[in-house]
Amino acid sequence: MTENLNLVPFVSVENMMKLVNAIGIEPFLTGLAAYIEEDFKRWELFDKTPRVASHSKEGVIELMPTSDGQLYGFKYVNGHPRNTRTGLQTVTAFGVLAEVDSGYPVLMSEMTILTALRTAATSAVVAKYLAPKHAKTMAIIGNGAQSEFQAMAFRAILGVDRLRLCDIDASATDRCAQNLARFGFEIEKCASAQDAVLGADIITTATADKQRATILNDNMVGAGQHINAVGGDCPGKTELHADILKRASIFVEYPPQTRIEGEIQQLPEDYPVTELWQVMTGRAEGRASDTEITLFDSVGFATEDFSALRFLRDQLERSPYFENLDLLADPDEPRDLFGMLLRAETAERAA
Amino acid sequence: MTENLNLVPFVSVENMMKLVNAIGIEPFLTGLAAYIEEDFKRWELFDKTPRVASHSKEGVIELMPTSDGQLYGFKYVNGHPRNTRTGLQTVTAFGVLAEVDSGYPVLMSEMTILTALRTAATSAVVAKYLAPKHAKTMAIIGNGAQSEFQAMAFRAILGVDRLRLCDIDASATDRCAQNLARFGFEIEKCASAQDAVLGADIITTATADKQRATILNDNMVGAGQHINAVGGDCPGKTELHADILKRASIFVEYPPQTRIEGEIQQLPEDYPVTELWQVMTGRAEGRASDTEITLFDSVGFATEDFSALRFLRDQLERSPYFENLDLLADPDEPRDLFGMLLRAETAERAA
Repeated sequence: MTENLNLVPFVSVENMMKLVNAIGIEPFLTGLAAYIEEDFKRWELFDKTPRVASHSKEGVIELMPTSDGQLYGFKYVNGHPRNTRTGLQTVTAFGVLAEVDSGYPVLMSEMTILTALRTAATSAVVAKYLAPKHAKTMAIIGNGAQSEFQAMAFRAILGVDRLRLCDIDASATDRCAQNLARFGFEIEKCASAQDAVLGADIITTATADKQRATILNDNMVGAGQHINAVGGDCPGKTELHADILKRASIFVEYPPQTRIEGEIQQLPEDYPVTELWQVMTGRAEGRASDTEITLFDSVGFATEDFSALRFLRDQLERSPYFENLDLLADPDEPRDLFGMLLRAETAERAA
Repeated sequence: MTENLNLVPFVSVENMMKLVNAIGIEPFLTGLAAYIEEDFKRWELFDKTPRVASHSKEGVIELMPTSDGQLYGFKYVNGHPRNTRTGLQTVTAFGVLAEVDSGYPVLMSEMTILTALRTAATSAVVAKYLAPKHAKTMAIIGNGAQSEFQAMAFRAILGVDRLRLCDIDASATDRCAQNLARFGFEIEKCASAQDAVLGADIITTATADKQRATILNDNMVGAGQHINAVGGDCPGKTELHADILKRASIFVEYPPQTRIEGEIQQLPEDYPVTELWQVMTGRAEGRASDTEITLFDSVGFATEDFSALRFLRDQLERSPYFENLDLLADPDEPRDLFGMLLRAETAERAA
């Protein structure tokens, strides 16, 4: 996208919003989902490592690197549940894509919005393999920042068009319903999680508290439902009662990370789970019967961010919503970094 | 520096050069060295982890995170020795400083130039404790991108003003000498490393080849010299003959990393080394006698980048050489990310 070696294309929050709106939210999610699925299918190519986390009393800051051998990507992301009290986002993120052969960054982007999109797109891709056939109705328990993205992704990719919303904060449900109003969903606001899951083919849990919560009890989940558990995604933060896990077939992104961060942190370390890449490549079975309870224990993995950055980069070739960042030193002679500094001073004085 | 929550101050390469030149290279190095030393002295506060490396045939891409409990910093850095063949830098870098309590980035900066400065400043800080008293003469073997920075740091912090330069590429030596000409060093260009080390109080090795090289042989190093070994800094890349290591007292930044990346990768895993923070806090002895050979096995550690970002941030309060980057989403209502996206579209259409 640039011939100047020192410049790195940068997608700001403003440009990300322009890009998503220019492409359209549903087409963006559909396109992104295809990249995510493609990368899951070439899973074995990737350098995989659990994220590098720095925990503190208030939250966590994480770096999530991965590489497919040609491109390298990483995301910086924080999770600070109490941030909303001071008007800050619970989660913010940015990421970088680089060329493995040169080590040069080729794209930097905001990833707060992009992560919301990729998390939802991943859930929908996974549900293609696990949700009951012809699923039309989804319960969304927890109507915060992720909820509308989940709804849009399930609509775009699976055709889900009936929503049953529930949140302990009724104003969150109102806002979610209002934000989604223009997209033609049939929406029911529910007073309790118990109410919300009634008749739902898919149950999405996406609450934000950093604690062991029990959003879903065992008696609330019925035969054949698919649970898309998005909220339980760090040590000490879970949403489902352990008894549900024991009744369900559990599918995960990357077991070493999910065992630390996901719902299955409640289970023994060797509890059997199925890796999604194996389902997507046909090596393992997805949903086995109409009565099976399937569970996607989503925690978010580095390859999904990689897919998102890769998708973004390809969009920028058609939709130039980026600016160029003077991020890399580019002396005339590569080894003459000091000389470049001296010449800058001379140029400054002359100016 | 900014009251807008979505904006992150960004120091481009151009602004970094302006800032360094505005402050002056030597004062910049001296100030930076003070921050590095201060952070070494509060070493125990830091979250420390070996860097997270992604190795490929051509090089390595690394993430180096650390935190002192209040601030979190990380650096992205690549090392691709063959990059110079295509006019690219061997090493490029950028970094981020963030608040631990909120997870919000507060500074993003180019770090190609800043790393060159911090590497040199670290060497000079360490030499304060290890070099022979009243050292005036330094040999620099390897006159590439790091060489002038080393010279300037040793001049600013130790008063070294006589240089003996040597490189297998004579044009590199010429350029180094020319770049340093205006700073009043007494410079001797030497035809061989053997020649260069003669009469030197300090020997700096800073070559770039990614291989096991022998820049210094055992018979070239004499009693009382301090070796500042900068170039051997990744697995498979060393500069010194193992026999030198066995005669010297070896000082390192962070043993778990240096044993993998430094000169001491040639030695058994339990070979005794001294940690620099212990020397700087008086818990361990530095140079013990006039005849001791001391060796700083420099590989570069995350805390030094942290110190550099912290120093940079403080300079920006006085010298506003930065621009603001729209990196973080900042919806009016923290949980309403989707609504922000919708409103951006509405605003776009109205415009």
